[in-house]
Amino acid sequence: MLDLWFTEKWSENTRFSIKVKEHLYSEETPFQKIDFFTSNEYGRFFTLDGMIMITEKDEFIYHEMITHVPMCTNLNIKRVLVIGGGDGGTVRELTRYSTIEKIDMVEIDERVVRLSQKFLPFTADKLEDKRVTLYYQDGLKFVEDCPSEMYDLILVDSTDPISVGEGLFTTEFYKNCYRVLKNDGILVNQHESPYYERYSQEMKKAHNKIKKIFPIAKVYQFHQPTYASGHWLFGFASKKYNPTLDCKIEEWNKLNIQTRYYNTDIQRATFALPNYVKTQLEEK
Amino acid sequence: MLDLWFTEKWSENTRFSIKVKEHLYSEETPFQKIDFFTSNEYGRFFTLDGMIMITEKDEFIYHEMITHVPMCTNLNIKRVLVIGGGDGGTVRELTRYSTIEKIDMVEIDERVVRLSQKFLPFTADKLEDKRVTLYYQDGLKFVEDCPSEMYDLILVDSTDPISVGEGLFTTEFYKNCYRVLKNDGILVNQHESPYYERYSQEMKKAHNKIKKIFPIAKVYQFHQPTYASGHWLFGFASKKYNPTLDCKIEEWNKLNIQTRYYNTDIQRATFALPNYVKTQLEEK
Repeated sequence: MLDLWFTEKWSENTRFSIKVKEHLYSEETPFQKIDFFTSNEYGRFFTLDGMIMITEKDEFIYHEMITHVPMCTNLNIKRVLVIGGGDGGTVRELTRYSTIEKIDMVEIDERVVRLSQKFLPFTADKLEDKRVTLYYQDGLKFVEDCPSEMYDLILVDSTDPISVGEGLFTTEFYKNCYRVLKNDGILVNQHESPYYERYSQEMKKAHNKIKKIFPIAKVYQFHQPTYASGHWLFGFASKKYNPTLDCKIEEWNKLNIQTRYYNTDIQRATFALPNYVKTQLEEK
Repeated sequence: MLDLWFTEKWSENTRFSIKVKEHLYSEETPFQKIDFFTSNEYGRFFTLDGMIMITEKDEFIYHEMITHVPMCTNLNIKRVLVIGGGDGGTVRELTRYSTIEKIDMVEIDERVVRLSQKFLPFTADKLEDKRVTLYYQDGLKFVEDCPSEMYDLILVDSTDPISVGEGLFTTEFYKNCYRVLKNDGILVNQHESPYYERYSQEMKKAHNKIKKIFPIAKVYQFHQPTYASGHWLFGFASKKYNPTLDCKIEEWNKLNIQTRYYNTDIQRATFALPNYVKTQLEEK
């Protein structure tokens, strides 16, 4: 029996390891190294530069939480920009809203999309939806070149800022997001984690930048067991809507969207952060 | 340089490893194997039968969440029974309430207490509080022999049911807890985790037993990164009080207890469970 383990260093002193059934595929692109695996417990999973992006077992958590929290806040969202998200899971959740008219997805690395379509049909199968347009560009450049007030919602489904996702954690990027959002627009972004130093530094930096640009800047949390510490965050920044006060609980429930993690009790609860996280977010 | 790693199997296919600076002490008692370690990232930590019980880095999360959620629900709690909890962290949090008059702690293994007093002063230092009485007995036997309606609150700070904690997950035990609680009593118990099969089975079994005995039986969640999956649960069972409706938010905040994880926003939010967890808890 092959005893093969994938290991990710969650910190210098912490390792998380998954038993692998088969290393399906490996490719080095101009941007990063992409690997696909199968495992008994997590199903298929893929990594970028050795970091787990999604596993079949728990990708639903991340993709539901990045999508339904802003959608429940404003059910009139029609035009959405997804930056990153090459595996397609975020787009899949968005396509569940018949009211959304246009989804532009900007992924820097076309190979992530193509390989996800091959190896991860459970996330990628809605990338062919007729409302979706794919752009293989740098997200930073895309929002720079984009006309103002084009979108109701921007979802930044990026890697960590230590790799190809770095530009998506800059003030310049957040300012352009603000500009290309309509006057009631919402930005949700991958916001790292409070527990390990390396991630919490990035969490603090991102929040400090965003709160200077958007009148409403909050952070919400969820349990993502295959990410470092299992305690992960999204940022919620908005020009107008408050996600806990303006959310449309009854109307969202009437849509009858079947979810496995998200529900409208979580809509408000997810913004209740532990004191040690709040303290970090308030630091300059 | 010594390259020493402690590894816990979170499931058959998942390993979590911490770099160890020094293996401080090891002892085999009639009940279990106890080990103490130091590490750069987690400070001191200890294991029972190879499972992490607490680390200096994040024990505050577990101990605050087991204590302050029921205390905020009923600020008139005067007599408390702690079952397990040999490291002393739960008692430490209880002693922060001047209104609590009596704390009985029942730990089956005296060596856990004695060694925690030696190696873990940060959790054990309130075991000498004059309100605390220590009993070195089986918790199951203790509640069986205990007169009725003795306590306002029972906190079951146990290991998993696969080891010495097994008796603390039985219907017989929960029924005796009900009996020894006053007519407005609350039971909070270590309730395992929803993510890995082995733990979720125990979570379901415990909840099915408790909800047949107590009129109010809920489950709440928190982020405990050094426990399997980082997604951990406590059960909240009660004869009278609902923790989200009857909680005393303003009064609790007036007590000015400084906490690092718990706050009164979390009091309600912690009970908002993901759909996949609710589904499991509703299964027979």
